[in-house]
Amino acid sequence: MSENNLVISVDAMGGDNSPRIVVEGINLAHKDNPDIRFILFGDEQKIAADIKRFPQMKDYCRIVHTSEYVRNEDKPSQVIRNKNTSMFMAIDAVRKGEAAAVISAGNTGALMAISKMILKTIQRIHRPAICTNIPHKDGMCVMLDLGANTECGAINLAEFSIIGNILAKHTLGIERPRIALLNIGAEEMKGREEIHQAAKMIKSTHLDLNFIGYIEPHQIGEGYADVVVSDGFTGNIALKTMEGTAKLISGVLKGAIKKSVLAKVGLPFMLPVIWCLKKQLDPRKYNGAMFVGLNGLSVKSHGGTDAIGFSYAIDNASKLVRQNFVQTIRDEVEHVDLDELSQDILYDVY
Amino acid sequence: MSENNLVISVDAMGGDNSPRIVVEGINLAHKDNPDIRFILFGDEQKIAADIKRFPQMKDYCRIVHTSEYVRNEDKPSQVIRNKNTSMFMAIDAVRKGEAAAVISAGNTGALMAISKMILKTIQRIHRPAICTNIPHKDGMCVMLDLGANTECGAINLAEFSIIGNILAKHTLGIERPRIALLNIGAEEMKGREEIHQAAKMIKSTHLDLNFIGYIEPHQIGEGYADVVVSDGFTGNIALKTMEGTAKLISGVLKGAIKKSVLAKVGLPFMLPVIWCLKKQLDPRKYNGAMFVGLNGLSVKSHGGTDAIGFSYAIDNASKLVRQNFVQTIRDEVEHVDLDELSQDILYDVY
Repeated sequence: MSENNLVISVDAMGGDNSPRIVVEGINLAHKDNPDIRFILFGDEQKIAADIKRFPQMKDYCRIVHTSEYVRNEDKPSQVIRNKNTSMFMAIDAVRKGEAAAVISAGNTGALMAISKMILKTIQRIHRPAICTNIPHKDGMCVMLDLGANTECGAINLAEFSIIGNILAKHTLGIERPRIALLNIGAEEMKGREEIHQAAKMIKSTHLDLNFIGYIEPHQIGEGYADVVVSDGFTGNIALKTMEGTAKLISGVLKGAIKKSVLAKVGLPFMLPVIWCLKKQLDPRKYNGAMFVGLNGLSVKSHGGTDAIGFSYAIDNASKLVRQNFVQTIRDEVEHVDLDELSQDILYDVY
Repeated sequence: MSENNLVISVDAMGGDNSPRIVVEGINLAHKDNPDIRFILFGDEQKIAADIKRFPQMKDYCRIVHTSEYVRNEDKPSQVIRNKNTSMFMAIDAVRKGEAAAVISAGNTGALMAISKMILKTIQRIHRPAICTNIPHKDGMCVMLDLGANTECGAINLAEFSIIGNILAKHTLGIERPRIALLNIGAEEMKGREEIHQAAKMIKSTHLDLNFIGYIEPHQIGEGYADVVVSDGFTGNIALKTMEGTAKLISGVLKGAIKKSVLAKVGLPFMLPVIWCLKKQLDPRKYNGAMFVGLNGLSVKSHGGTDAIGFSYAIDNASKLVRQNFVQTIRDEVEHVDLDELSQDILYDVY
């Protein structure tokens, strides 16, 4: 396979129902992306048994057998040196230039640790981030970091803004994304010091970003920003709170419908509403947490997703690969000396 | 008025529709709490005009005229020294022992700053916190800090656990509340260092708390804990994310119903569901952010709430006052030397 073809390497053994879901997801993604070729790493026999159901798949899929795989309960520190797992080999295919991106529905910590070790952070970027697209009332926005870095300095937040800007351009097709720092207030002095410093860095003339200031969490759903930047702790808290609140509301709704005969009668009338809600807020559409800032793209699919969810993760990754995402980051940061900028800001403060 | 009566002082000029909403809220709260007496601070003429509609109110309400009031756009640093505002005087009534709690729907920052200055932090408590009750699938839980402290050390989080424990007992009637620290993972080493240290402090034998470890945000709605403890930045992010997500979902639902003729036909069948949803998740029920850890109780009602919401804030405050909330905190921390405990933990770490 040449580097010119769009090749994605897949850890076929990750996730709750692998390799079945993985194979079915690839089959679905192929319909919209007939030019993508896949390398599937994992138990050859199991994968072949699943692929048999889709005879055409052998034309664009290649299986590389691995006898080992990473389990959900494995600690990243344990699996990071085992070069024989399907996850390790799938990531290594990106390093070798055999694939442009890797996707796994397996152990998140392991995927991040191995990706970071093998692919390494892009020069001039200090730390990679986890990001995803989330829905708001008029569309979608990019959110990062969602958990790669528990604590972040201003320089990391500024870098995430640069990366987020490119992500929003490439995955959402927004020409000049509105970038905001997640904070607990709109006023300049609200929140933490590193956020204030990051705002100064992003506003500086070196970075040509459409920075709109701070965003409060309840404004995300209003669609105030196209890129929401935070440290990984805060981003993870916000993302999991969204999930929990959505689950709470749908649980209360379902419980209320169950209790009411009248509601059960009315339910069929509500089907268009349920379809519309699913269409706009279906979590499968936002499947695929991308590990960005590395020399290669590493994508984590939700472990419990179905084939449709897995195909969305492939689709998102392919959009980035098609637009040379990694090279674009390299180009953008090449003429921005964030370290120097960071020094300037610090002198300014003290 | 003697100290034995339950007296609540009210900043009648705070909030979007004051004093009307405030007066109507007091009238509602009176029905369930006929023993509470109120002192209303603000423009005497305006308040009297509103009270006229409820002739009985003069039996349990006293008006203290103030010519000034705090505006939403006023900075806390500006209003903190103005002793003539309705907010300042309402808080000062608690210091003087004329009232057991103060409620305002006005400027949050000002209320917190003036309350802290006048009422002062309880001895042995390092920092006050903002807390509120939030819904989960089986009931409610207490969440704190929601924004008083942007950054917190382990000792603050441990203190919030003690206060939260009493809050859950008094406002929710839970005998042995399950206390959890908000974090991004369940494993011991996940998240920030101060959270790990706080866990050690809370687990120590000095504190007799029903500590269940870490809670992730999506577990709050599942009802895993009765008290959710975090620093004020994280708590504020989580709370505002809940608000935003609920608003996004209800907006999408309403939009979908509007677009569908079928759904409009079915809507009347869904009324029991809407009632049930409102009953369980109505934000007015959770109105009243309590500023706790001070020598007196200071309660912030949502500025845009209605009379029902304001009456819930009164109701919540009265529950705490009836059970001698402030004195209970004093008693609990009297035999816990958190500073010493904190030193032990630090020696343990380094």
